[in-house]
Amino acid sequence: MHGTLCCLVPDNTNIRLTLPVVCFVWQIAMIILFGVFIRYDEESNTHWVETKAHNNITSDIENDFYFRYPSFQDVHVMIFVGFGFLMTFLKRYSFGAVGFNFLIASFGLQWALLMQGWFHSLDPQTGKIFIGIESLINADFCVAGCLIAYGAVLGKVSPVQLLVMTLFGVTLFAVEEYIILNLLHARDAGGSMVIHTFGGYYGLAISWVLYRPNLHQSKRMQGSVYHSDTFAMIGTLFLWMFWPSFNSAITDHGDGQHRAVINTYLGLASTVLTTVAISSLSQKTGKLDMVHIQNSTLAGGVALGTAAEFMISPYGALIVGFFCGIISTMGYIFISPFLEKTLKIQDTCGIHNLHAMPGVIGGIVGAITAAAASESVYGKQGLINTFDFTGDFKDRTVLTQGGYQAAGMCVSIVFGVVGGAIVGSILKLPIWGDPADENCFDDEVYWEVREPEHQESIPPILEYNNHMIHKHQDL
Amino acid sequence: MHGTLCCLVPDNTNIRLTLPVVCFVWQIAMIILFGVFIRYDEESNTHWVETKAHNNITSDIENDFYFRYPSFQDVHVMIFVGFGFLMTFLKRYSFGAVGFNFLIASFGLQWALLMQGWFHSLDPQTGKIFIGIESLINADFCVAGCLIAYGAVLGKVSPVQLLVMTLFGVTLFAVEEYIILNLLHARDAGGSMVIHTFGGYYGLAISWVLYRPNLHQSKRMQGSVYHSDTFAMIGTLFLWMFWPSFNSAITDHGDGQHRAVINTYLGLASTVLTTVAISSLSQKTGKLDMVHIQNSTLAGGVALGTAAEFMISPYGALIVGFFCGIISTMGYIFISPFLEKTLKIQDTCGIHNLHAMPGVIGGIVGAITAAAASESVYGKQGLINTFDFTGDFKDRTVLTQGGYQAAGMCVSIVFGVVGGAIVGSILKLPIWGDPADENCFDDEVYWEVREPEHQESIPPILEYNNHMIHKHQDL
Amino acid sequence: MHGTLCCLVPDNTNIRLTLPVVCFVWQIAMIILFGVFIRYDEESNTHWVETKAHNNITSDIENDFYFRYPSFQDVHVMIFVGFGFLMTFLKRYSFGAVGFNFLIASFGLQWALLMQGWFHSLDPQTGKIFIGIESLINADFCVAGCLIAYGAVLGKVSPVQLLVMTLFGVTLFAVEEYIILNLLHARDAGGSMVIHTFGGYYGLAISWVLYRPNLHQSKRMQGSVYHSDTFAMIGTLFLWMFWPSFNSAITDHGDGQHRAVINTYLGLASTVLTTVAISSLSQKTGKLDMVHIQNSTLAGGVALGTAAEFMISPYGALIVGFFCGIISTMGYIFISPFLEKTLKIQDTCGIHNLHAMPGVIGGIVGAITAAAASESVYGKQGLINTFDFTGDFKDRTVLTQGGYQAAGMCVSIVFGVVGGAIVGSILKLPIWGDPADENCFDDEVYWEVREPEHQESIPPILEYNNHMIHKHQDL
Repeated sequence: MHGTLCCLVPDNTNIRLTLPVVCFVWQIAMIILFGVFIRYDEESNTHWVETKAHNNITSDIENDFYFRYPSFQDVHVMIFVGFGFLMTFLKRYSFGAVGFNFLIASFGLQWALLMQGWFHSLDPQTGKIFIGIESLINADFCVAGCLIAYGAVLGKVSPVQLLVMTLFGVTLFAVEEYIILNLLHARDAGGSMVIHTFGGYYGLAISWVLYRPNLHQSKRMQGSVYHSDTFAMIGTLFLWMFWPSFNSAITDHGDGQHRAVINTYLGLASTVLTTVAISSLSQKTGKLDMVHIQNSTLAGGVALGTAAEFMISPYGALIVGFFCGIISTMGYIFISPFLEKTLKIQDTCGIHNLHAMPGVIGGIVGAITAAAASESVYGKQGLINTFDFTGDFKDRTVLTQGGYQAAGMCVSIVFGVVGGAIVGSILKLPIWGDPADENCFDDEVYWEVREPEHQESIPPILEYNNHMIHKHQDL
Repeated sequence: MHGTLCCLVPDNTNIRLTLPVVCFVWQIAMIILFGVFIRYDEESNTHWVETKAHNNITSDIENDFYFRYPSFQDVHVMIFVGFGFLMTFLKRYSFGAVGFNFLIASFGLQWALLMQGWFHSLDPQTGKIFIGIESLINADFCVAGCLIAYGAVLGKVSPVQLLVMTLFGVTLFAVEEYIILNLLHARDAGGSMVIHTFGGYYGLAISWVLYRPNLHQSKRMQGSVYHSDTFAMIGTLFLWMFWPSFNSAITDHGDGQHRAVINTYLGLASTVLTTVAISSLSQKTGKLDMVHIQNSTLAGGVALGTAAEFMISPYGALIVGFFCGIISTMGYIFISPFLEKTLKIQDTCGIHNLHAMPGVIGGIVGAITAAAASESVYGKQGLINTFDFTGDFKDRTVLTQGGYQAAGMCVSIVFGVVGGAIVGSILKLPIWGDPADENCFDDEVYWEVREPEHQESIPPILEYNNHMIHKHQDL
Repeated sequence: MHGTLCCLVPDNTNIRLTLPVVCFVWQIAMIILFGVFIRYDEESNTHWVETKAHNNITSDIENDFYFRYPSFQDVHVMIFVGFGFLMTFLKRYSFGAVGFNFLIASFGLQWALLMQGWFHSLDPQTGKIFIGIESLINADFCVAGCLIAYGAVLGKVSPVQLLVMTLFGVTLFAVEEYIILNLLHARDAGGSMVIHTFGGYYGLAISWVLYRPNLHQSKRMQGSVYHSDTFAMIGTLFLWMFWPSFNSAITDHGDGQHRAVINTYLGLASTVLTTVAISSLSQKTGKLDMVHIQNSTLAGGVALGTAAEFMISPYGALIVGFFCGIISTMGYIFISPFLEKTLKIQDTCGIHNLHAMPGVIGGIVGAITAAAASESVYGKQGLINTFDFTGDFKDRTVLTQGGYQAAGMCVSIVFGVVGGAIVGSILKLPIWGDPADENCFDDEVYWEVREPEHQESIPPILEYNNHMIHKHQDL
């Protein structure tokens, strides 16, 4: 049967030309651009020994590497195992989930180093971008935005489309990030706005443009099976466990990283309980739904992406997590069907509930928390450090800051929606080798699946019986 | 078939009322209590900049965060992926294993921050609990005790029962921990006594009270299948690899953390070899048993929970691991059947062999190692640092310390057994929605299992043949 | 059927005597040798407080533990989860892959601490080996060489053979490492030569000696199934994500570790794109092959094992990764079949493509990069630091260094090939309980597989039908 299916796959999913060409050309472009622009920064350069002497740094441990490397590795795990395995929940799309996630993240992080470098750290004198551990974290963050978007179109696009989506996604990301963090001077260390809101709406807009009215033709492939749900929990848990590292990876040394970890840790714990509560309420016998557990439990981390570094206080973090668990789970129950039916947005992983909505909540929470900040709570210097009220922004008040935070959120939504709509139109061109409606969510289209699953599960005796049956039929 | 089963599930497993109510009420209680009691400590507070200046701290890297965060993240992985996946070994209880582990750990860590805070770090002046990274580690540790107990009752209780068990477990934990660490001033950085002995006996006592004479009715669900055993190895390995972090997470800065890592690393390696040896001996053709490999390989880590920070010396660690591998594996072969048959204790995961016994061994090893400590080995200051012979305890001798270590172990056993018996009685009330004997170890009771497994494994051609067969039968 | 198979297994796979004896005797030997030789170093000793005072170290954070522990834990994950799960790809050898990997790594790291200690850090005055965190990393590295070799013989040897292979492998490793790093004073922080080239050729030579002309008899077991490929991706991803830690774990504090991470991160990203490109090109419809994605994506990390700590520059790292992805994938397509057919080398995991070839490339890249190093790029002190031009080697030029790097590569190849051939001959003795040709790649030989897989996948209704069919047959 699978063999037969294979032959029914329309020719246009043949990506033997496009995929290798895109991979080769883009990778060569990366090499050239890196050759022209990218250099080691002073902390990863052999001249560090001179830098140390010059700056009176007494120990190698002051190298930013030691402040950020553990968090970086956690973020790296979230990007590749977290996002990758979270998307393996479909019964026959695990290769595509993990494999394409791997591919586009590997491309995206290179392009992100360039794009973010040009916007944030191009040295005007040398014309070079100097990279260090914080650049790698930011590149991973930027990629996260695109992987979120992948969640909306999972199973419905070709790897070439995903690469195109990532190319533009990273580009848009770098621009909106520049506007939000540098021009508006909003704070968003864990990316509620910059990463999650943007990534969420970017993916939803693309999915809206790529709407497939006949997607029900691949309905048989749209569910999960027992083991695929278990695999997906690997993704969920690594995302959940390492989210404190995500939200603290680029916050201020010392109390900044410390506080962001505590807040995220608490917010996420709270989310789990309300997710379970709503999930149980949604079934008439109180049974739990793995979709909710796999996804909504993470909403608290998304929503603390902006405020985790602020003095939101431990109970504040719990409250944010509390409501996010409720809202996100309700999203899966009520809003996703509405989006699909009414707005014609097919959102495979429910990124609207896990990233877009909680991201917006995170932006609002951040704006309110910033506006409510006071010198009595933060201390004079603490307030300056936390909101970076230095240089051009030294006279900014917390109220103004709150306003700019809110403005930042709007920017991320606009970039997501408009950018996604435009990129979606490009992806609609019939040249990208995307699967037909009846072949969506099926690894067979883009992967050599050596042994059809039935070979795995039929014991020898049954195979023998099969022959018997065939004989029966032949008779 | 599964559909039919589903209808046979007695009504009392309906947790649509109890589970959401417990989750909501308890989470709201957490928020209120956190609001009243929990604040950031001085290292996670924006006032850190002043603290630094005040204490002449020259660099942010001196923040305790950088000493402990990598270990914390490893411990966090052990709690959620380690314990969660270790319990996925049953063929149809992976959702319950990973999912309920996730739920009760998320609740438990919040309650632990409060309970441990009240007992260990309530500031008498302000009436507040100030939390930092070490508090999060301790909360995770506290939760570990309850997750161990979950292992004994895996598959036989409802999530509501698990939450109740965690509520009381954390409470008891905080009290016994206070007695052992503060009043007796015993050392137990990796929790051989405080975590493993207590958690083990707590779970066993509960399981003893909840004894099900007709559990054989769910015998068909009690084994593992090939892939569930492979999933369980994910849990085993993350526990095994990160155990050095577990035992060193809250030991002294510098040599204390360093030494605890070395000892645990070595002890665990040694355990693997003797576990394999005994497992192979136990079968007439020398085949290995996955149950042993999944569990007993970890016993050395448990047994070094107390002594890992002492100068037990590398070969001492190997010896502890050597015997623990033997004893734990023999426990699975001989003691578990005895416990079930004679003592009426049904211990699903064999926590007696993995936690209770090795925990007791760890307590004894700790007491002996402490009593045998000498100034010639430790150095004068080293001895004081290691055993914290300061303040009220500055005149304590190592022999006395050994005695108090042994006393600590007894306290942990008593708290486990008595506490477990009482909590077990509470859990016996017929209001918690626990499964009937014939529905134990089955995810269908508490989870929406969308697609019965046979759908997954029957290839289309076979389904067709099925129809053929049915026709045959009809004829 | 499985039951029947079980009885067909020849008696000589009975390892009930040999395996326990080897485990016990060797572990006891380890304990005795550790007792005689191994002690804590000054940073993991309670005397650290005095060491600090003596050396004017102001903070515990200067303890090497804090520079290396996060990297160590990542390396540890690579050894146990990375290598272990990468080898689970076979449909019925997951227990052997993860379990035997666990066993031999646990033995190997103990033996490595001794062997490396004798060669590298035996204190001439006390006759002791002082170990700390760097020793643990080096022990894990040494084990990696043997696990690579395991990949070539996966499924074809008994655990006793694996232990013997590890005993000799670690021994050979310590000697070649001493020659390359100490005598030749070559640099090889990530082990392109010392670990990957040696390990690769060691395994290939063993596999060549153990050639099985009738291996096709177990052809039915040689493929992967859907879920086993997904499990293998866990191994791939943890190796890929943590490779930056592998290559930087023992490089110089500060810029050395920082730079090694950046280079490896970039090289690996580049490899993914070219691997995907070649994999897609190799199929007539452009489909991707999981074997390539699982393995060749890692080749860039191998090939940067030597040069990652040098100033190879970011685009240089991308170029190395670029070519390694191409060469490694082509190796799977063209060279592996050639090796099997013409050279009679059966390489189960394709370690020639993942370790041996990329290792050699890494050695060459290292030699060229070293020879091309200049004071203008590195700075005067930077050059001395990076290549350790101190003591006996203070007058060495970069050109000479390049030559010694190349010589080091030859040493690793010679040790691998000759050592492997000799060890292979020992393993050919008919006393080790290796499986018959028709039982290769089958966990049933060495593991209690409680429930045959068909029990798992046949739904009750089908089992019933089976009975029906049997009746038909009986008629």
